[in-house]
Amino acid sequence: MNTSDNASVSQSLSHVKIVMVNTTLPANIGSALRAMKTMGLSKLVLVKPKTYPHPDIDALAAGAQELIDQIEIVDTLEEAIEDCHLVFGTSARSRTIPWPLLDVRPAAELSMQAVLQKQQQIAIVFGREDRGLTNEELALANYHLTIPVNTEYGVLNVAQAIQVVCYEMRMATLQQLEHESESEKNANAEQMPVTADTAMDWDEPLVTHKQMEEFYPHLEKMLVDIEFLDPQNPRLLPLRLRRLFGRIQLDRMEYHLLRGIFSRVQALSQGTWKKTSMDKEDQSNA
Amino acid sequence: MNTSDNASVSQSLSHVKIVMVNTTLPANIGSALRAMKTMGLSKLVLVKPKTYPHPDIDALAAGAQELIDQIEIVDTLEEAIEDCHLVFGTSARSRTIPWPLLDVRPAAELSMQAVLQKQQQIAIVFGREDRGLTNEELALANYHLTIPVNTEYGVLNVAQAIQVVCYEMRMATLQQLEHESESEKNANAEQMPVTADTAMDWDEPLVTHKQMEEFYPHLEKMLVDIEFLDPQNPRLLPLRLRRLFGRIQLDRMEYHLLRGIFSRVQALSQGTWKKTSMDKEDQSNA
Repeated sequence: MNTSDNASVSQSLSHVKIVMVNTTLPANIGSALRAMKTMGLSKLVLVKPKTYPHPDIDALAAGAQELIDQIEIVDTLEEAIEDCHLVFGTSARSRTIPWPLLDVRPAAELSMQAVLQKQQQIAIVFGREDRGLTNEELALANYHLTIPVNTEYGVLNVAQAIQVVCYEMRMATLQQLEHESESEKNANAEQMPVTADTAMDWDEPLVTHKQMEEFYPHLEKMLVDIEFLDPQNPRLLPLRLRRLFGRIQLDRMEYHLLRGIFSRVQALSQGTWKKTSMDKEDQSNA
Repeated sequence: MNTSDNASVSQSLSHVKIVMVNTTLPANIGSALRAMKTMGLSKLVLVKPKTYPHPDIDALAAGAQELIDQIEIVDTLEEAIEDCHLVFGTSARSRTIPWPLLDVRPAAELSMQAVLQKQQQIAIVFGREDRGLTNEELALANYHLTIPVNTEYGVLNVAQAIQVVCYEMRMATLQQLEHESESEKNANAEQMPVTADTAMDWDEPLVTHKQMEEFYPHLEKMLVDIEFLDPQNPRLLPLRLRRLFGRIQLDRMEYHLLRGIFSRVQALSQGTWKKTSMDKEDQSNA
């Protein structure tokens, strides 16, 4: 691989951020930086790290100073992922709530497709050393990501997990850039370029995580208005709706369309909007 | 994956030994054991380790005691690999002697083919922390193995390299065992079952195309009821909704949830259902 190839690999991987939540051991942050740098990733976000800064981080990340300089520290996971389109929460196998689950390899392929075809921003979120991510944090993700391990001894630590994820991200990038350059070759010859099966010719940009964080409360408020959701006892409904809309990745048009529908239903429910054609409707429903 | 699957994965991976030459840091041996155990490998051979035994090894390999018990200590690399059919020497990119070179992924695929089809023994040899393997040692290998890294910062340490190698060995084993069991199924039945491309650990079955063909008219009817959709001039709205819900793959629970919401909105719109708590709602919306 020559230098300009390397540049486009790093440029693609700059769309992927690693997010570490409430990390306790500085050594794990240092190892994460080293793993990232080795594989060509550059963006690390720390959500309320227990110990930062710390000399162990610098020692383990020797030679990765520009990554240390770029570290972003935030207070909440929401802040960390607000500009992201596709968020993966890493999790052990069994959870109380089922969620779309991908192994690290297909997750990396999906991510790098989203980066290369749609310039999306990706976040991979890693939890605490002792107990991972909470169910609330996992519910913010579009997908859960697992690394297939020996289930009788499933204890990759967070640094090892980051190592494997960064490696798969790099491999997926190399494969897809190679695929692209082959397609270009084909296009320059007589052949049509092959397009990936999940590629969509989208006319509208996809919405960000932050926009979706306004979407869910609106949806829930509307459901409360029509008494479909009991705010005193919501049960699994809000979670199910997050899981459902979290895997669609709405575009801007769809987003405004759905929010327009919610507002119309609310206005109808609150009596601030009335049907113009009550009689006609009644007849048609007869 | 059930227990008997796990057993056959471990059994296959017992044919792969990790060989560490002249390792200095006990922590790297401990990390190697942990990485091996997590991925299902079990045989570690140490060629003249600098420090062995050492409490750091036991601490890092907590829970992998049976791997520690099985560690083999030998004086020469020749001894370590004498029962092996296929030997990989890990090496940085550029070497003075050209040699058959494989990236870790194809190397793992080749290895597990050799194990599963020919019951061969495999060795992956890792060098010293500071200067890797000598040219003489590399010349004992059938292939050299590299991990594709950022060439401007190509410094995976030995523990990280072992982590990636063990992970790829496990992935290659899982893929080939799956491939085998599919071939068996094919031999037993005429038809292959269709599997979804993104496997999800779903608690509910996904709805069929036929069910969705009842979903869209219901959604549209509801939107007509609330005058969001003009049946005389629907424009692109029905198409946009199909495109949107068509890419979710609803499960049965979600399907009934959404249709329940549509029905509630319709009933509200048609006056066949009234809110029980109009006053409370009005206050909360004030």
